[in-house]
Amino acid sequence: MSASPSVRMRIFLVGANGTLGRAVAAELGTRHHILTAGRNSGDLRLDLSDPATLRAALAKAGRLDAVVCTAGEVAFAPLSAIHPAGIGESAYTLGLTNKLLGQVNLALAAREHLADGGSITLTSGILADQPIAAGSSASMVNCALEGFVRAAAIELPRGLRINLVSPSILVESLPQFGAFFRGFEAVPAARAALAYSRSVEGLQTGQVYRVY
Amino acid sequence: MSASPSVRMRIFLVGANGTLGRAVAAELGTRHHILTAGRNSGDLRLDLSDPATLRAALAKAGRLDAVVCTAGEVAFAPLSAIHPAGIGESAYTLGLTNKLLGQVNLALAAREHLADGGSITLTSGILADQPIAAGSSASMVNCALEGFVRAAAIELPRGLRINLVSPSILVESLPQFGAFFRGFEAVPAARAALAYSRSVEGLQTGQVYRVY
Repeated sequence: MSASPSVRMRIFLVGANGTLGRAVAAELGTRHHILTAGRNSGDLRLDLSDPATLRAALAKAGRLDAVVCTAGEVAFAPLSAIHPAGIGESAYTLGLTNKLLGQVNLALAAREHLADGGSITLTSGILADQPIAAGSSASMVNCALEGFVRAAAIELPRGLRINLVSPSILVESLPQFGAFFRGFEAVPAARAALAYSRSVEGLQTGQVYRVY
Repeated sequence: MSASPSVRMRIFLVGANGTLGRAVAAELGTRHHILTAGRNSGDLRLDLSDPATLRAALAKAGRLDAVVCTAGEVAFAPLSAIHPAGIGESAYTLGLTNKLLGQVNLALAAREHLADGGSITLTSGILADQPIAAGSSASMVNCALEGFVRAAAIELPRGLRINLVSPSILVESLPQFGAFFRGFEAVPAARAALAYSRSVEGLQTGQVYRVY
């Protein structure tokens, strides 16, 4: 059982070089072995938008106890600037193909590499519940991830688990994004990282851990 | 104000020939003028997957007080049969492009045709909250619609409103789909139709009307 308190796990962490990813690596890295993955850095390279790179990176990683993703891109645009368009040209395409389908594909690809009872932890965000101007793609994608995680949890084989962490704006991201999140209580990345620990080192599945 | 109790509205109804659409037409048609739209039948023809047809049908409809959609397709498949794939080949593509982006595009296209205070009402479903086997695409898409509607509601101009109706399995659909929904309380389409009336003839926005 991967989640026994004394076991040192092998954890595949996508987005390991981001603000949140570094905090997750710091939290879990004291007790477990972290394999870092990212687009431009890390032990293994991958692009969430490209399923072949997810398969390839996981194949190189060997047997895993947990897969965690703290990456995923969406476009921010005022609704007034968004017009009807097919999936190829839509303002929603980046969010749907990268943060949503990218994380979904990572979860699907992870199944064959995870030990029995292993876990998958994906990332959404507070805009699922609390919309902001220009955030309709993020709200859409974050909610979609909740639906996917709840549904996948009941169908995964071999005791595999899947959860979602939905953080508020990070304290560390306020200089860059604070103007979009006036009045939101920011959370330190280290506090958000605890939710990933709860998912990876706990035993629940199909949960949304809201950090706000 | 479109929602004044005594006004006869012009309502554009997509999916008017479906089980739910016919019930909505029966409920709202006694008090308002319904323009029916669908892929194979109706006053106006359109395909949710094709944004150009949405624009063209709305342009022909003239000034509207409400746009309602009771259509939208998703694929049902066991998670074990779903593998990582890009948006072009994914088992999630139909749901993302038809039920999700199709309804989103309809809402975006509707803006310029709706009178001040007019409403948009889209359809999700109970699988957003209550997953079933083979339903991960439906759960994902239904939740995504919740996020979009909450976010779009705060950015729409001119008092335009947008809501979502999330019905349980319909009594009328039990012969065809009942085996997937064991233990779910089915609701008559006529009861689900009341939620569309509440959205169109009420004044709320950003709401999810759950009919279960």
